[in-house]
Amino acid sequence: MPNIFYNSHHSPVGAFASFTLGFKGASGGLGIELAGPACQNVYIGIESAAAPGQFFALPFYDAGERGRSVEAEPTAQDVWGDSDRAVADADGGGEHPRGQRRQPGPAPQKAATITPFADGDIARETTPACDVWRAGGLEFRIYTPSLSLPDPSRSAEQVAQDPSALKDAAIPAVFVEITLDNTGCASPRKAFFGYEGNDPYSAMRRVAGERVNGVGQGRVTGIFTDDMDVACALAFSAEELLAGDISDRLPFGLGTTGLVLMSANPRERRTWRFAVCFYRAGVVTCGKEAYYQYTRHFKSIEEVAEYGLKRFELYRDVALDFDRMVAESGLSGERLFMFSQAVKSYYGSTQLLVEAKANTPIWVVSEGAYRMMNTLDLAVDQLFFEMLKNPWTVRSVLDQYAGGYYYFDDVKSASGEKSAGGIGFAHDMGVANAFSPPGRSSYELRGKRGCYSYMTQEQLVNWILCAGVYFEGARDSAWLERRRQTIEQCLTSMLNRDGADGARRDGVMDLDSCKTGGGAEITTYDNVDTALGRARRSSYLAVKCWAAYLALSKMLGALGMGKQADVASGQADRCADTVLKYRRGDGTIPALLEEGNAAVTLSIVDGLVFPVVMGLFEDAQTVDKHCALVAALKRHFEAALEGGCRFADGGWKMSKTSDNSWLSKTFLCQFISEKIFRHAPDAEADKAHASWLLDPNNAANAFSDQMRAGKICGSAYYPRGVTSVLWLY
Amino acid sequence: MPNIFYNSHHSPVGAFASFTLGFKGASGGLGIELAGPACQNVYIGIESAAAPGQFFALPFYDAGERGRSVEAEPTAQDVWGDSDRAVADADGGGEHPRGQRRQPGPAPQKAATITPFADGDIARETTPACDVWRAGGLEFRIYTPSLSLPDPSRSAEQVAQDPSALKDAAIPAVFVEITLDNTGCASPRKAFFGYEGNDPYSAMRRVAGERVNGVGQGRVTGIFTDDMDVACALAFSAEELLAGDISDRLPFGLGTTGLVLMSANPRERRTWRFAVCFYRAGVVTCGKEAYYQYTRHFKSIEEVAEYGLKRFELYRDVALDFDRMVAESGLSGERLFMFSQAVKSYYGSTQLLVEAKANTPIWVVSEGAYRMMNTLDLAVDQLFFEMLKNPWTVRSVLDQYAGGYYYFDDVKSASGEKSAGGIGFAHDMGVANAFSPPGRSSYELRGKRGCYSYMTQEQLVNWILCAGVYFEGARDSAWLERRRQTIEQCLTSMLNRDGADGARRDGVMDLDSCKTGGGAEITTYDNVDTALGRARRSSYLAVKCWAAYLALSKMLGALGMGKQADVASGQADRCADTVLKYRRGDGTIPALLEEGNAAVTLSIVDGLVFPVVMGLFEDAQTVDKHCALVAALKRHFEAALEGGCRFADGGWKMSKTSDNSWLSKTFLCQFISEKIFRHAPDAEADKAHASWLLDPNNAANAFSDQMRAGKICGSAYYPRGVTSVLWLY
Repeated sequence: MPNIFYNSHHSPVGAFASFTLGFKGASGGLGIELAGPACQNVYIGIESAAAPGQFFALPFYDAGERGRSVEAEPTAQDVWGDSDRAVADADGGGEHPRGQRRQPGPAPQKAATITPFADGDIARETTPACDVWRAGGLEFRIYTPSLSLPDPSRSAEQVAQDPSALKDAAIPAVFVEITLDNTGCASPRKAFFGYEGNDPYSAMRRVAGERVNGVGQGRVTGIFTDDMDVACALAFSAEELLAGDISDRLPFGLGTTGLVLMSANPRERRTWRFAVCFYRAGVVTCGKEAYYQYTRHFKSIEEVAEYGLKRFELYRDVALDFDRMVAESGLSGERLFMFSQAVKSYYGSTQLLVEAKANTPIWVVSEGAYRMMNTLDLAVDQLFFEMLKNPWTVRSVLDQYAGGYYYFDDVKSASGEKSAGGIGFAHDMGVANAFSPPGRSSYELRGKRGCYSYMTQEQLVNWILCAGVYFEGARDSAWLERRRQTIEQCLTSMLNRDGADGARRDGVMDLDSCKTGGGAEITTYDNVDTALGRARRSSYLAVKCWAAYLALSKMLGALGMGKQADVASGQADRCADTVLKYRRGDGTIPALLEEGNAAVTLSIVDGLVFPVVMGLFEDAQTVDKHCALVAALKRHFEAALEGGCRFADGGWKMSKTSDNSWLSKTFLCQFISEKIFRHAPDAEADKAHASWLLDPNNAANAFSDQMRAGKICGSAYYPRGVTSVLWLY
Repeated sequence: MPNIFYNSHHSPVGAFASFTLGFKGASGGLGIELAGPACQNVYIGIESAAAPGQFFALPFYDAGERGRSVEAEPTAQDVWGDSDRAVADADGGGEHPRGQRRQPGPAPQKAATITPFADGDIARETTPACDVWRAGGLEFRIYTPSLSLPDPSRSAEQVAQDPSALKDAAIPAVFVEITLDNTGCASPRKAFFGYEGNDPYSAMRRVAGERVNGVGQGRVTGIFTDDMDVACALAFSAEELLAGDISDRLPFGLGTTGLVLMSANPRERRTWRFAVCFYRAGVVTCGKEAYYQYTRHFKSIEEVAEYGLKRFELYRDVALDFDRMVAESGLSGERLFMFSQAVKSYYGSTQLLVEAKANTPIWVVSEGAYRMMNTLDLAVDQLFFEMLKNPWTVRSVLDQYAGGYYYFDDVKSASGEKSAGGIGFAHDMGVANAFSPPGRSSYELRGKRGCYSYMTQEQLVNWILCAGVYFEGARDSAWLERRRQTIEQCLTSMLNRDGADGARRDGVMDLDSCKTGGGAEITTYDNVDTALGRARRSSYLAVKCWAAYLALSKMLGALGMGKQADVASGQADRCADTVLKYRRGDGTIPALLEEGNAAVTLSIVDGLVFPVVMGLFEDAQTVDKHCALVAALKRHFEAALEGGCRFADGGWKMSKTSDNSWLSKTFLCQFISEKIFRHAPDAEADKAHASWLLDPNNAANAFSDQMRAGKICGSAYYPRGVTSVLWLY
């Protein structure tokens, strides 16, 4: 990659936590439940072979205040307090004291300097489950294994076969190996790893236990090793701890920076193992009370560390296996990079919780920087990834919606005529650990036509499509049977949104939810433009409705409800016919299925992915029936891509009239282009898309989705990029 | 007071929490376990009578971004997203996204402006348990009742007499009344109260319960009322919520600001009651596991609110009674202000915890912005306050030290000769919820001569003096009996620090702890200057040793150990003789009891307070015996105060050679001056001291202790100012 200084979201599964690292400066660190990187100083470095007492580090700290040499001799000010620094800490201005310091740091005994490695001396290799930096004699490697989470509904027999499976998978830790190659050096050399936490509530601390050593902050974050030879200490700066013998200062508790200090013998190549751990005890949500699954298995962050280090090999092997599996698929370098970033940002946004009252495990994906919970229009995109990893999490989200986050509405025509609506699903279940009241999202508001309006039709098809893909993929007839009533209600609701008069229905949404008041429904593309954002008669939504009718038909058939299955199937046909009817001479289909609409979008094709993934196109009859629609969409897609839906750099543009394009959705379109339309992969576009993520304006945010002409304009630190898993389908 | 815009630390007892308010801008807010004010926007205001739809507020928010009128009509950008604002939220630069927003706020329907009240229109009255602001028709009143905490060792019978006493006292809430006087207005008028939280981990939320309404953040902070007529909602700005009817947006969950909106009828004077609540569940400390006592009584912040509002009258009455009691003492305006600030900052730093393993309640005072736990050189000053409020908390601190935070050392002479030392007590027990390992403070380091060195002699006398004052004040012979061994060990340790050779002891510390390595012991005045900071032969410490020997003599006598009591008493005499021996012609006594030392301090007299408070001076024999020392100290004090220990503004200076003076210690000196030396109160000095706290450079930090020529230079947001309670003795 042309720029190696990008943040990655190195995360356990389901802990809503990340050891973010890779962008220069105090841009990463150990974060839990945050809307962005923790922005801490992270210190990873080694002693110079040529100049003992001088140190080099990866550039993941604020070197502006550092890099200065600390004087060898304390001055009078150091002994009796340095008034200037004390005032700076505790002045009455805007900057209030938050540090732990009583007075400025103790005067160190010797000089120490930390210099960032030169950019050109650093190599980096990011893969889906690893990240490696090499510089000088240092290798720093992060493993982010993502073990499959056992299905909570598995039988007692299955549990007995692998009793620690859930504990192993839910562990809130990622794993690190630091290697110092001192083979070329005749003196011992130090290495170090540490950080300066910024939790506002608790102190940094040193952990010198019987089985693990490390440094941490409060009970929440920490880095630990089971190597008992290391020294762990706190100080006000990393330099102080590197300045000579620290044995006298091990108990010091006031430092804001904690380091683990290691030493390799002369001519030795030595590797140290770490677990970077996270822990949040007790109920963490409100509205509905839930706690992290891992708190059932581990009583404290120290227990996490101890267990993780004991099973280090397991975790490393799982990470390497995943990388090997992906490598065998032969993704291009750009795609491997984007997929790796996407997987890491996805897991950093996940929560495996236990709902306290029902004692039920629930799966929550937080919406990146927005932190909305299980946003349904993201779930429908992320499910391709989870169907490969943990299909039960898709069921969990479906059940959480069907069990609480639904409503029934009336609908209204453009002229204001009301009629019966049906079941709708909320946009999300809350935000940042605050569950919304039942039936409500945190997002949707009455009286809107753009952002914050209701997404009733969009979320209805999203629930149906998740259900269809889950049912087909997991072959879970028992679940389908349990949701029989909801599936039926979905069909009714779909029909009612097409029109009150059955005879005049055309398969396309015509009626807005009355929940919108004087406003109108929107789609997931809430802030792109009218072409993609408006729901009523949206061709993007029409193709998704077509797919939803096919899914409904399949599920209703499986439920033995042949008549309703036929109704659904008939609606799919009507919908396809309507879309085809609006084709224009140039082969394009308008964004809004209305006379005279001139807008063109790529995203109209999104919905095609579902019948393909559900395997419906393996059935010749279905293919025949819908080949006209697929052909028309193919033609539209080709015309659109060549006719304005492309940026100057070759990147794809979802809507011709907006510069705001979303990478996750672009990956979906690529899958359709390559697997359905049989186009060759567009390597030029991949280069452009990767370059957007690597742009220094974007690269601090790990995987980010919304790009306005290649610059981030929303959806930072975002989970949705795992649509890129479709490259592997 | 000349400046009414100072922060006060409005706090429950033992919850390490504060609703800080009073300094302009986003300088206060709801903080828990913080090292300084929360720095949130707090919105307290009313609708204009003259211009409905326009609002005035107290200036406790950042008006820089506010005060602008919000446009009535949404623009196209508002409908389809405002690219500029979205970019500002989520750009890849230094400022990472932390907000809850998905897109910029929904376009409001009507214009709303909030204007801060003009300074001259605001009146404020701060008393020890209340704080009131009046502006226009608004009155905003905070009650901070501090009920006595029942002694955990009380009998089951006593518990049965008042079973809710502990719950009542430990409630993590402060209480608010907002009154809108609309008697002069023929229209209804709105009032509002809310805040923009900045917890990094959880969302703001609306609470619309069956018994309480309010807004809060996560499970941690919130403002609640039991008035069911109010509306509670979230938005991205307070202005949005004031712009007309908000009924459509009540469920919105994404806002960063939460407001409670109230309305007074035409011609009505209406008061609303609030509980401002805090809650931290589960184990909060590490090193040793402890949780807040209040979590035993309340399962959630909502339960805190409900209970607090139900007993609102009790809490208000307790606050008013305390204020009345203080008012009857006739303190001057300046003293009342400083005492009020001190009490509030003290309680904001307190924690009533339960040590989980031993299931024992423990009392922890956090050291202000430094957050060290139970710093012993603060405990010895704060005990005068607690002996009036909760004497058992003094015992709790003594027992925590005697039970774990002590050590045994050797000592060394100036020339390096080693001899046996004895028991010593750590400087503190840890920092910011991280308990240090047993026997160790977070602060003390080997090899220092200034800040961060050991305070062995200082903390030894501090433990003895706390014990003496507690034993005498509480008449707790049972406790003394339990601590018999420690008291004996203290005597031995005191003797050994005076000198290895009993015949050559002079009552004054001569030997430094070997814990200091090549360094030397310091006193509590760690960063003032050598005159006050060095321990060996410090006259300040000598007078404290004298007081400690008197206290030991008393306790040993009560334990029936007459011989040891006599030894202690003899040491007090020797100490007094030594101090007297160093008197100079001008009546002053040098800071260091060495030939040729020229330094002069006020603080030499500090130790006099203990025998007085212990009632020892009520015994004629003791008075006779020590009248020479008291007379000498009086003469020294007068000479020092007139000879350089005073700032140009009349404020007192603890050491002639340092501009760094500590208010808490100054209050101690004032007590000695007035109650022992029988000087008239120095009103000019009080004015100067109050003006330091009110200086705009200091006033954001509530009570702060260390002032360098009237400007804060350390010890911000600090509990130690309750030495001012001695004005009431």
